[in-house]
Amino acid sequence: MIAEVVCVGTEILLGNIVNTNSAYLSEQCANLGLSLYYQTVVGDNDERMTEVIRTAVNRSDVVILSGGLGPTQDDLTKEITAEVMEKKLIEDAHSREQIQRHLENYVKTQPNRKITENNWKQAMIPEGAIVLDNKNGTAPGLIIEDSGKSVILLPGPPNELVPMFEHQVFPYLRKKQPEIIYSKVVKICGIGESMVATDIADLIAQQTNPTIAPYAKTGEVHLRITAQAKSEEEADQLIDPVVRKLQERFGRHIYTTDEHKTLEETVLELLRERGFTLTTVESCTGGALSARIVNIAGASDVFKQGFITYSNCAKEKYVEVEKSILETEGAVSSKCAAAMAKGGSLTTGSDVAVSITGIAGPDGGTPKKPVGTVFIGCCIKNHTVVKEFRFNGERNKIREQSVVSALILLRSCILENSK
Amino acid sequence: MIAEVVCVGTEILLGNIVNTNSAYLSEQCANLGLSLYYQTVVGDNDERMTEVIRTAVNRSDVVILSGGLGPTQDDLTKEITAEVMEKKLIEDAHSREQIQRHLENYVKTQPNRKITENNWKQAMIPEGAIVLDNKNGTAPGLIIEDSGKSVILLPGPPNELVPMFEHQVFPYLRKKQPEIIYSKVVKICGIGESMVATDIADLIAQQTNPTIAPYAKTGEVHLRITAQAKSEEEADQLIDPVVRKLQERFGRHIYTTDEHKTLEETVLELLRERGFTLTTVESCTGGALSARIVNIAGASDVFKQGFITYSNCAKEKYVEVEKSILETEGAVSSKCAAAMAKGGSLTTGSDVAVSITGIAGPDGGTPKKPVGTVFIGCCIKNHTVVKEFRFNGERNKIREQSVVSALILLRSCILENSK
Repeated sequence: MIAEVVCVGTEILLGNIVNTNSAYLSEQCANLGLSLYYQTVVGDNDERMTEVIRTAVNRSDVVILSGGLGPTQDDLTKEITAEVMEKKLIEDAHSREQIQRHLENYVKTQPNRKITENNWKQAMIPEGAIVLDNKNGTAPGLIIEDSGKSVILLPGPPNELVPMFEHQVFPYLRKKQPEIIYSKVVKICGIGESMVATDIADLIAQQTNPTIAPYAKTGEVHLRITAQAKSEEEADQLIDPVVRKLQERFGRHIYTTDEHKTLEETVLELLRERGFTLTTVESCTGGALSARIVNIAGASDVFKQGFITYSNCAKEKYVEVEKSILETEGAVSSKCAAAMAKGGSLTTGSDVAVSITGIAGPDGGTPKKPVGTVFIGCCIKNHTVVKEFRFNGERNKIREQSVVSALILLRSCILENSK
Repeated sequence: MIAEVVCVGTEILLGNIVNTNSAYLSEQCANLGLSLYYQTVVGDNDERMTEVIRTAVNRSDVVILSGGLGPTQDDLTKEITAEVMEKKLIEDAHSREQIQRHLENYVKTQPNRKITENNWKQAMIPEGAIVLDNKNGTAPGLIIEDSGKSVILLPGPPNELVPMFEHQVFPYLRKKQPEIIYSKVVKICGIGESMVATDIADLIAQQTNPTIAPYAKTGEVHLRITAQAKSEEEADQLIDPVVRKLQERFGRHIYTTDEHKTLEETVLELLRERGFTLTTVESCTGGALSARIVNIAGASDVFKQGFITYSNCAKEKYVEVEKSILETEGAVSSKCAAAMAKGGSLTTGSDVAVSITGIAGPDGGTPKKPVGTVFIGCCIKNHTVVKEFRFNGERNKIREQSVVSALILLRSCILENSK
């Protein structure tokens, strides 16, 4: 079944709010196994809304509309949908009662408010529609069915839309859609998107069910394997052989197949398993690596402290980089990165220390060491490895790539050390 | 002029990511005075993309597309747009050179990577198109003009799209729009959104041209004053009196009226003007405050080092917090925050030190100190101030609010100190 999402609202078109309803509804459709081909946003305008709703009803089996169900004259979604679907609007006694109860509660605690006539507009429904109760607001939701198609009208505020969808729309759609969509993710680090794409071109060329889709993140590529099946077990049987094939091809570059696990979580786990503690010594990233590690709840058993040694002086004072290295090689050098990692490990007594030093720009580049030159060091049990990188992009992008590359180097050093 | 935004990407249709590009592009169109009537999202599918792009080009003067410019076979935006607009694709020598440079830098330091043939697909452009250089990735942007219409193709990743729009597309569209929309921003910190809204309710009630719109950010409220006028001078004459009124009302809470200046930049400037150096001592934020400071180019003359004292032991060892404070008051306490700031200043010899210690959750809260309890300290020239906060939200949100509140406290302490 083909679905589509239409959101109505001028504040979305003005960019005042990010359209999280679309993301939520689309994710739910994906979980239900509906094929979602379009998302549209349109303003509260008679002509343009008519055009958009008519197009949607013609090309899709399920159209989910959100917004424009309020009590004001601007709110047109219900009226226009009824017109497009050729349904008369009639007053619904049950809805009127619900609205009355909701408003009476509200007015009781708000001495300046009273129930205004326009509120009853919300009790009008297209003839034959299924009414969806709204526990968190006055606008009821509606499902209008005609010729095998379902048009679902939901209120715009996410705190009304989400529970209404979850408790009333999801079960309704579940019954219409016997097949489910189920997916798994294979997360790869240390190989570029186009190389991954080349390596799986044959699998993608053959694919029908399941399908494989690559998503590039900074320093990572995620491959999503999606199957359509009658049950989760059947989906697993389709997906698992593909996951195994990917594991054969990408080996250690796969850091997880867990949907919710991040690269930094995997690294923390590896450290925890080995009883290792970690120290960070950051220059150009200024704490961004540590911040990412600390964002994982429970990092404190592995991560005890970090240094932001931004000046040369701080590199000498806190992690014992020798003055001679700074004078002859400079702060952005392989030797300095090595000394920072080693010093970080020694002065703190940590098993592992990772260091980052580089030129994030926009100034400070030289022909030999252009902006984007970054050295990353990792010291494990007194054994130090340094890698040199040349990143492209603006200051922020260079720092972001540095942080991810540090996590990737850290991961590979831990795995190497455990061999 | 009528504009419309089309985003291409299966991950948006699957609800895996929230469509922030649409919100950004729509806000920019509003700033430019373009009327935006539609936002559409479509997947990487030949037939559906052709339909969507054709419809958009027919009904709008400016169509902004994002996504689908990558090197893989899935990426179809450029090819289909060229077909719809009846333009041949030719190789662009400049783009090929840019891509080659970008990739060579990348491949040099990555032994596992090589340039694959599919990368050159990104150097193909529709004949006569304006090429937009991409400093943060390989896919160039494109502007295709025909019969007074402009179709603008931008890469999907926000860190590539945003700078490309700002530096190349905004000036291009600015020239096409004769009545200009001009706006200024008044950035306020340290007052909540609803209080700001109450304080300007009378101004908003009267507004026609210019208009005032509040935007809430974490810890900040930005008021955008927008005028429609024939020239920048005329716009200034409309806007400036409103800015003066806001300055009278919000006084020192306004930290800048410069569109591009951030709170951390303002704080760094204040420090630099006074010849002050800064040290950070972070616990629950784990380096996020320092990372935000270091993100400002040229921070090194003010910021020399920072400490991430995540464990109690690190607080004692690196910034000399007394054991007795940790034992009797705990690490999340006013006394500990004060000791961290004072110790950070003393051990480094910095004029100013700022400290953050708190409970970011999800665990670790107690009835007396629930999750969200954060103490922030600021020590200037041996005089220490501590503020206690109770933040709501998840771990990440608590840490973000902590970072902004530290910057706000730092700012107010510096201003207070200079009186």
